[in-house]
Amino acid sequence: MSHNSFGHLFRVTTWGESHGPAIGCVVDGVPPRIALSEADIQPFLDRRRPGQSRFTTQRREPDTIKILSGVFEGMTTGTPIALTIENVDQRSKDYANIADQFRPGHADIAYLWKYGIRDPRGGGRSSARETAMRVAAGAIARKILGDGVTIRGALVQMGPHPIDRARFDWAEVERNDFFCPDPVAAAHWADELDKVRRDGSSLGAVVEIEAVGAPPGLGAPVYAKLDADLAGAMMGINAVKGVEIGDGFAAASLRGEQNADEMRMNQDGTVRFLANHAGGVLGGISTGQPIVVRFAVKPTSSILTEVASVDAVGAEIMVQTKGRHDPCVGIRAVPVGEAMMACVLADHLLRHRAQCGDPAPSGRLPVTPNCSPERPAP
Amino acid sequence: MSHNSFGHLFRVTTWGESHGPAIGCVVDGVPPRIALSEADIQPFLDRRRPGQSRFTTQRREPDTIKILSGVFEGMTTGTPIALTIENVDQRSKDYANIADQFRPGHADIAYLWKYGIRDPRGGGRSSARETAMRVAAGAIARKILGDGVTIRGALVQMGPHPIDRARFDWAEVERNDFFCPDPVAAAHWADELDKVRRDGSSLGAVVEIEAVGAPPGLGAPVYAKLDADLAGAMMGINAVKGVEIGDGFAAASLRGEQNADEMRMNQDGTVRFLANHAGGVLGGISTGQPIVVRFAVKPTSSILTEVASVDAVGAEIMVQTKGRHDPCVGIRAVPVGEAMMACVLADHLLRHRAQCGDPAPSGRLPVTPNCSPERPAP
Amino acid sequence: MSHNSFGHLFRVTTWGESHGPAIGCVVDGVPPRIALSEADIQPFLDRRRPGQSRFTTQRREPDTIKILSGVFEGMTTGTPIALTIENVDQRSKDYANIADQFRPGHADIAYLWKYGIRDPRGGGRSSARETAMRVAAGAIARKILGDGVTIRGALVQMGPHPIDRARFDWAEVERNDFFCPDPVAAAHWADELDKVRRDGSSLGAVVEIEAVGAPPGLGAPVYAKLDADLAGAMMGINAVKGVEIGDGFAAASLRGEQNADEMRMNQDGTVRFLANHAGGVLGGISTGQPIVVRFAVKPTSSILTEVASVDAVGAEIMVQTKGRHDPCVGIRAVPVGEAMMACVLADHLLRHRAQCGDPAPSGRLPVTPNCSPERPAP
Amino acid sequence: MSHNSFGHLFRVTTWGESHGPAIGCVVDGVPPRIALSEADIQPFLDRRRPGQSRFTTQRREPDTIKILSGVFEGMTTGTPIALTIENVDQRSKDYANIADQFRPGHADIAYLWKYGIRDPRGGGRSSARETAMRVAAGAIARKILGDGVTIRGALVQMGPHPIDRARFDWAEVERNDFFCPDPVAAAHWADELDKVRRDGSSLGAVVEIEAVGAPPGLGAPVYAKLDADLAGAMMGINAVKGVEIGDGFAAASLRGEQNADEMRMNQDGTVRFLANHAGGVLGGISTGQPIVVRFAVKPTSSILTEVASVDAVGAEIMVQTKGRHDPCVGIRAVPVGEAMMACVLADHLLRHRAQCGDPAPSGRLPVTPNCSPERPAP
Repeated sequence: MSHNSFGHLFRVTTWGESHGPAIGCVVDGVPPRIALSEADIQPFLDRRRPGQSRFTTQRREPDTIKILSGVFEGMTTGTPIALTIENVDQRSKDYANIADQFRPGHADIAYLWKYGIRDPRGGGRSSARETAMRVAAGAIARKILGDGVTIRGALVQMGPHPIDRARFDWAEVERNDFFCPDPVAAAHWADELDKVRRDGSSLGAVVEIEAVGAPPGLGAPVYAKLDADLAGAMMGINAVKGVEIGDGFAAASLRGEQNADEMRMNQDGTVRFLANHAGGVLGGISTGQPIVVRFAVKPTSSILTEVASVDAVGAEIMVQTKGRHDPCVGIRAVPVGEAMMACVLADHLLRHRAQCGDPAPSGRLPVTPNCSPERPAP
Repeated sequence: MSHNSFGHLFRVTTWGESHGPAIGCVVDGVPPRIALSEADIQPFLDRRRPGQSRFTTQRREPDTIKILSGVFEGMTTGTPIALTIENVDQRSKDYANIADQFRPGHADIAYLWKYGIRDPRGGGRSSARETAMRVAAGAIARKILGDGVTIRGALVQMGPHPIDRARFDWAEVERNDFFCPDPVAAAHWADELDKVRRDGSSLGAVVEIEAVGAPPGLGAPVYAKLDADLAGAMMGINAVKGVEIGDGFAAASLRGEQNADEMRMNQDGTVRFLANHAGGVLGGISTGQPIVVRFAVKPTSSILTEVASVDAVGAEIMVQTKGRHDPCVGIRAVPVGEAMMACVLADHLLRHRAQCGDPAPSGRLPVTPNCSPERPAP
Repeated sequence: MSHNSFGHLFRVTTWGESHGPAIGCVVDGVPPRIALSEADIQPFLDRRRPGQSRFTTQRREPDTIKILSGVFEGMTTGTPIALTIENVDQRSKDYANIADQFRPGHADIAYLWKYGIRDPRGGGRSSARETAMRVAAGAIARKILGDGVTIRGALVQMGPHPIDRARFDWAEVERNDFFCPDPVAAAHWADELDKVRRDGSSLGAVVEIEAVGAPPGLGAPVYAKLDADLAGAMMGINAVKGVEIGDGFAAASLRGEQNADEMRMNQDGTVRFLANHAGGVLGGISTGQPIVVRFAVKPTSSILTEVASVDAVGAEIMVQTKGRHDPCVGIRAVPVGEAMMACVLADHLLRHRAQCGDPAPSGRLPVTPNCSPERPAP
Repeated sequence: MSHNSFGHLFRVTTWGESHGPAIGCVVDGVPPRIALSEADIQPFLDRRRPGQSRFTTQRREPDTIKILSGVFEGMTTGTPIALTIENVDQRSKDYANIADQFRPGHADIAYLWKYGIRDPRGGGRSSARETAMRVAAGAIARKILGDGVTIRGALVQMGPHPIDRARFDWAEVERNDFFCPDPVAAAHWADELDKVRRDGSSLGAVVEIEAVGAPPGLGAPVYAKLDADLAGAMMGINAVKGVEIGDGFAAASLRGEQNADEMRMNQDGTVRFLANHAGGVLGGISTGQPIVVRFAVKPTSSILTEVASVDAVGAEIMVQTKGRHDPCVGIRAVPVGEAMMACVLADHLLRHRAQCGDPAPSGRLPVTPNCSPERPAP
């Protein structure tokens, strides 16, 4: 058990504070002989990097990833892969004025009640900076999943403004500052967020992550449900307050026959689902359909607008949080959500292989047992 | 790692199929010298028991709990507590006709793709019958948490019909067949569900669970976030498709200052929050406010209405699921959700104590370190 | 984490006290579609069963195993396998006189210091009766390993009397009451143990366990060393005080070139080791050679001879332990040691498969990568 | 689960290869508000450091430890502590000639069978260099245990030459190059080892580790036995082939009454044991007596003496291992064994506190429950 690790067989342990010398992680359990270099990881970090538009924090971090172990001559060796990123642009003084103040909506006070001590510089361990290592680990997870699995994410709502699903276009996601799949919404959001920024406020958002091509059979019926692990992974991202799979909360309003994903046969002997209300997971196990997860991100708590609070000695104060912050943390949560999806799937792929052998590539019928032969050993 | 255990220090491992001789669980890590007998557990099972109204499955199970180990002369001994319930009313023949058919929305096909074999009687391991053991474990978890912590749940939406929050009354929950806190809604739901049952269909629902009195400091900043563990626990309940904490998805539509739970001081030196948008958790750590979780339950997949499907040899068929089913599984999910809340809190209480010593009873300021002295050992 | 589970992917959780209604275990992670019935398990329990000769405790327990879940129509389903044995011959009164006394060499006093409460009947949870469930789990582990792996054990020393290695004969092990591979030693031990029994005393022993046919590649270089896990598993058997692999403590007296297991090539392209000082494990990883472990069992602490002790209120007393005890617990530790070997190997086989794919059947050169192809997924 | 972590609540994850840029570890679960700096760790690394006498490898590594996270203004914060040591003196060319050769007694060939790839430089991950991080983690573990617990180790046998127990003097351990508590033996060993070194050979050894002052109650009756965890921890040190607790293998030759550690009362109400055959552990739980462990280290496999082997393409060869090696790796295993003892005890202290509250400082009778009150929470 560790409070700073996630995953079981694909296991990531992160460390580091926002304003310490570096942050890092150890990725254990990676299969040997997978081609891997920094170049496989850096592009994902670049997508998450702060300071790329006026809509994210102006902290300037190159976020250059280094591999310190576990790779030999460009191939993974099966031993733990240590990754690190140096912290470059730490302006601790920005935070000096809030070291003894508790910001409403922030972890400050809960943290102090827990540990009786905290590193106030930039949120310390509770900073979203930690998510850089999730993105790095996610890049390795994608290598394990292989090219057959595509994981992608988008911002589908900013503040109270959802996208128009009729205009959903994955290609659009890379063309704006919001990972927004709807160009009309993106333009609207830019105006809205500029205004919010000028007001010294912030906005919430909803992120959608999709994995296409994952094999059927990942997960398990009871306490290793794929959707339960995805829910825990997404809710564990900073500022996330809700998670749903497939139709999610909307499913509560459906009747049984509306919610059923009916099935028909393809010519090639595979099963065709006529809908995907389930979001690719039935009874905790993947079906081969796209796995679809959404999560809600609250508005950043660090805002210029004054709010009522208390300080460390129990005085009542008004707090205004200066410093460099994201007016909508949901934006940069998109690559983080993708990474968590990748990590959960990679972990379940290895867990499945341990018990059942390599998964079947597609959902064929009649079921030719895709598990290992009766006995796994020679 | 286990696919059938949850929790880390308060650790529950369940076993058993719907139509096997029995179901059971092993609860490990329970502190010694807690008074415990079957009478502490049975009332919670009785709340979840099927067949108590026309709105739940007509399977008649007394669900009588037996303690087989870990308790000596009415006190826990610190050793594993084995619990078991005999299956009494298994009518396997009800399921004979669907053994080779896949029910849309059910785990059947995913299960077979995973394991290449399944026990088709009553859903086998994927049956909601397994949740009886969660409820039993939850009763033990409540004993660990003590009388100072109150955990309670309610159905706050059935199908598309939410309760009226203005009429929310916890006392009402025990007065109707739905765990509904709004008497007007309850009457309406009864009519609605009777109609749905006659149609051979089913309804989804939303459940809300609240824990009052949990100490501040439970959870941890990164991968042991209290809300992340709650999300995983609730999403792991059968048929759940979405989970939210505090304002949840609604928080996405708020601005930073709206979402901030402002703070003021009480006369007694404790902190008073002016709102609870956060649902009692900040940065993954409890604040002492009520912990509030909601989850969405999809409509039962086992319905009399015919839906298009395939069978085990790949033939296209129409499926109609006879047998005894819950027209709204969300109802009986209420005591299960309470149990999962209790188990997660008990686990985090022990985890907190391991690292930081006993938690402080209330959120006082100035922070008198509520953790252990510098060195935990003599 | 659990204090009552062992293994990671092949994971066994045991429960039950010596004089409770039953003992049991849950075996999780078993691959699906392995043929399994009680008849696969019972013979191993019969080997361990008490009361079969005058040299073991006279408690009469049929130790009849029941499978309660996880098997459908004679095949494992991949879900947890619950096993149970009823306790039949509990004579709690035998222990009434020692409930408040601490027996030197026993867990009594340490147990009470830990938990502040204990079930004194027959040692409660610390009774060697718990090892019956290890033997049952071991029988399932053997099914996972398959017929290609042979696991067998022998008593190689009783009290100060070792066997003569020149007379070592595995067939002999089943022909005497001691699992002794040397018929001359067995005859001598019978006389010796009769005398010790008449004296109201007990003897220690050394057990040797060997696994032949395990594939190379099991284990891992650092904290999942196969030999480290075997050491923990064997030391965790009641009354064991020492464990060694291969030459063990004798290796300390060797020089480097004496200890080297030199290698030559076989005609079929496999490697031939000219010795097995290493006991089949190099750098924590199996080599395909026989895996050889020995462990020392202390003499039973429950003896008729009076020894100085104290009681629960701090009075100085003399203690004499009546009741039914094994004069040499090392004898019945043989099937338990075999079971632990099987469990550790099955766990490592699944762990290896998760990361590296199915192991190679033999140690061939040049190394044709026996791991999975570059990417484990579709 | 991780192949590169050990401990459960005090959890250490190490990474790095012998000839990579650095090695490191992450220590998770450390209680907050413990004073900690590099100066607390460096002295233990200095004791283990190579190149300090002619009797250890001539690789010159300053082994300067850096703390990268988890400490704020000299105090632990409860967040993960990342430690790192740069590799300075890597002469990879020394190993070029053996990259394709398998050294008998080394992990080379088993490693390749497992992973199908290996980093041959200096043994890669299987190098004893990894143990530097264990020593660093052990220094933190000692801080958790506090000054009341003393952990110390000694070399008690080199090759076939044991010390004379009558001359055992802990002060002597720091006065010679062998951590030898017997000055006469130390002098003899120096001559012996010089000769062995000149012969291009190596010697085995036996190390003894003792913990004095650990509280009673650490461990658990079944699969968290303190002695089982110690056995696994010690056997997991490179080159270790045997582990024993207390009398260990010698206990097998004793009779019950000889092996019993009889008890009498002290004036102050604590229990006095008249012997310590058990090595401080009864039924897997500490008694408050000194915890005594010994382990056997095989002679280094890297020797100049030629031995028969094969290479990666299956050719039969003679191997001679040049480079810089320890003629007796047992010497530098002493601080590593101490560290493993500290880590296991710190982990069990936290585990005990989670379930039972802070341990009692001494073994008093009548037992005033040293566990938590009935309910651990407010």
